[in-house]
Amino acid sequence: MSGVLQVVGMGPGDPDLLTLKAVRLIEAAPVVAFFAKRGRTGHARRIAGDRIDARAELLRFEYPFTTELAVEDPRYLAEIGQFYEGCAAQLAERLAGGDDVALLCEGDPFFYGSAMYLFDRLHREFRTEIVPGVTGMSGCWSAAGIPFTHGDDVLMVLPGTLDRQALASRLATADAAVIMKVGSNLAKIQAVLDDAGLLSRAVYVESGMMPGQRILPLAEMAGQAAPYFSMVLVPGRRRAR
Amino acid sequence: MSGVLQVVGMGPGDPDLLTLKAVRLIEAAPVVAFFAKRGRTGHARRIAGDRIDARAELLRFEYPFTTELAVEDPRYLAEIGQFYEGCAAQLAERLAGGDDVALLCEGDPFFYGSAMYLFDRLHREFRTEIVPGVTGMSGCWSAAGIPFTHGDDVLMVLPGTLDRQALASRLATADAAVIMKVGSNLAKIQAVLDDAGLLSRAVYVESGMMPGQRILPLAEMAGQAAPYFSMVLVPGRRRAR
Repeated sequence: MSGVLQVVGMGPGDPDLLTLKAVRLIEAAPVVAFFAKRGRTGHARRIAGDRIDARAELLRFEYPFTTELAVEDPRYLAEIGQFYEGCAAQLAERLAGGDDVALLCEGDPFFYGSAMYLFDRLHREFRTEIVPGVTGMSGCWSAAGIPFTHGDDVLMVLPGTLDRQALASRLATADAAVIMKVGSNLAKIQAVLDDAGLLSRAVYVESGMMPGQRILPLAEMAGQAAPYFSMVLVPGRRRAR
Repeated sequence: MSGVLQVVGMGPGDPDLLTLKAVRLIEAAPVVAFFAKRGRTGHARRIAGDRIDARAELLRFEYPFTTELAVEDPRYLAEIGQFYEGCAAQLAERLAGGDDVALLCEGDPFFYGSAMYLFDRLHREFRTEIVPGVTGMSGCWSAAGIPFTHGDDVLMVLPGTLDRQALASRLATADAAVIMKVGSNLAKIQAVLDDAGLLSRAVYVESGMMPGQRILPLAEMAGQAAPYFSMVLVPGRRRAR
């Protein structure tokens, strides 16, 4: 009998925002896998803290890049594909041996999570269980105290990597927006929101619900550097209710 | 010393998807408030189960309507405004008396939650704490086993109440979409997705992560009735990785 691949959402960063189900699976898993950048603990691993059984086998999947390569770059696609193949093979070996594996993912696994690429490779062969988690964006608007989408608001979640025109045209069709992957796109995002008359409503959030959390009006970020995983929030329209 | 208004996200329906923080606050709260439709237990109350302290005061806020009124209808705005005023007054009384109040909200409170209208009325006067929860949409795509947004996907969340042209033009700008408030809009949503060549990718989810969960291809829902709080999921583009 093969084991079950448990894809476990770890929430936005505060271990107190783990779900009961996530905690139970992490504590019981004989094998615990997680992604990490080179030289880092890994967010998901940090959130799990000491809940992992001391006898569990840990599989640390270290991303092959420390710097950003364009996702369209053929070298990126080839290398990252090979990387995920290797990770999936390691998981398949444990699952085939009968062990359940808890694959830890920050946020919600099926919402921009790397775990999807391992799920894609394994779900036909093995039983899987997906444990949704609190997303980073929910963590950010809650930490900022910003009621975000109301009634019939249209919400758009988009990457700051889009070009200026693509960002502008998409923002024009939404009531509320979350712009992810801010990083070096900060000035462009500020300019687009300013043009759209949305800059005064926009809030910048860095390390939401994590150590080092920083929340301020986007307009005050002019000229500053932002890390890649920061976020810009444009809340929906307030209505009289 | 006034109490704290704790706005507690209860997740998509499965009590096992409560966060550790939500459980702790619910168990400790001397006053627990929640919304419910006439004649119903209320989703948030059901999810809390027997975690609420037997000595806690329960405040049940019953929505004034059992049927839908258009949100633009002046009678709707007047009545719902009065309703929220009354709820806020009841909370303010307990908070001013020094009691913490846990206001339970299904899903994530600041993501289309009614609790925002009470937060809006109370956050200037009282301390507040927002506990984010797993959203209904995360619960649905996890239950359906559908990896949803990848890499640079643009995600759009939109109400099925939009007219046909508005739905179509917005869907054209997104890679992945969540259409909420399906109900009587089902046939329109199916037609728009069919025109856009997206019907084969669309999945219908009813009571996601709750008793009575139902998941099937949207195309198979032709001619059937859907409840208001069902959802249509159009996952993002699968990429070779």
